[in-house]
Amino acid sequence: MISKNTIILGFDPGIADTGFGVIEKIGNKIKFIDAGSIKTGKDKIFFKRLEEIYTQVDKLMVKYRPSIVAVEKLYFAKNVKTALDVGQARGVILLAIAKNKIEPLEFTPLQVKQAVCANGQASKYQVGTMVKALLNLRAVPQPDDAADALAIAITASFFNKKLA
Amino acid sequence: MISKNTIILGFDPGIADTGFGVIEKIGNKIKFIDAGSIKTGKDKIFFKRLEEIYTQVDKLMVKYRPSIVAVEKLYFAKNVKTALDVGQARGVILLAIAKNKIEPLEFTPLQVKQAVCANGQASKYQVGTMVKALLNLRAVPQPDDAADALAIAITASFFNKKLA
Repeated sequence: MISKNTIILGFDPGIADTGFGVIEKIGNKIKFIDAGSIKTGKDKIFFKRLEEIYTQVDKLMVKYRPSIVAVEKLYFAKNVKTALDVGQARGVILLAIAKNKIEPLEFTPLQVKQAVCANGQASKYQVGTMVKALLNLRAVPQPDDAADALAIAITASFFNKKLA
Repeated sequence: MISKNTIILGFDPGIADTGFGVIEKIGNKIKFIDAGSIKTGKDKIFFKRLEEIYTQVDKLMVKYRPSIVAVEKLYFAKNVKTALDVGQARGVILLAIAKNKIEPLEFTPLQVKQAVCANGQASKYQVGTMVKALLNLRAVPQPDDAADALAIAITASFFNKKLA
């Protein structure tokens, strides 16, 4: 039985690439539904890229009507410029989720790695491999940020009390 | 004669305090209309603060129907945490402006200081004093971020070709 109440969406924010992952939780099992990346071109004016991210996140919210949505929470970034850019993408993603009447959950990369790999220091490769195993996929989802977004959704499926 | 075509809005983004300034350009003169600060409480969940900023910016856009809107563009921040927070506020501000069919202009603090004080190294005090002088105010606008937002609006009034 597929219930719309158990759809979980995960987002890995970025200006050029925002990963998204959609899973379903049925009892104790989790199932892959969709994953991919919202890409915005460097040739576009900056605020148009933010608009594109907002619109695409909104479309995913409307399409999948998730009951739980989680977004990666960052404390670190390569530098201040990266942090400002990721921050702006993250701001419009949180807004698009909130406009759909869902309170976004936030997990740090450490929480995601601990939840998915039982190791806060896990590599991207290890996270991808565990996502593949947990969702019974034939290959690690591509691109990287889609795999990361699925890992965030999986983390939400473990953490959230609504699903306990 | 007051024309709605000459209203300029400036924003100085922040999660706790987003400064705004509204001026009008009539010929070669600029006139103070409004200024203040959008404040969001630390007690609120983070995404609620973003929603509040978005809503208040949208209200200002609807109230003043500006033809030009400028937002401070940052390259520097005290640290990555600050950059992420300011970035998120900035993202929803740009989105609120774009949703009102205006292409936001962006000026760096250096550009603002050069435009308003003819000195890229000007202090906050110097910027405030020049804003007071240029707008014929009795005192420097308070709080600081309101004065900064007015300085951003004044910069837009100097730079923008639509007003040349």
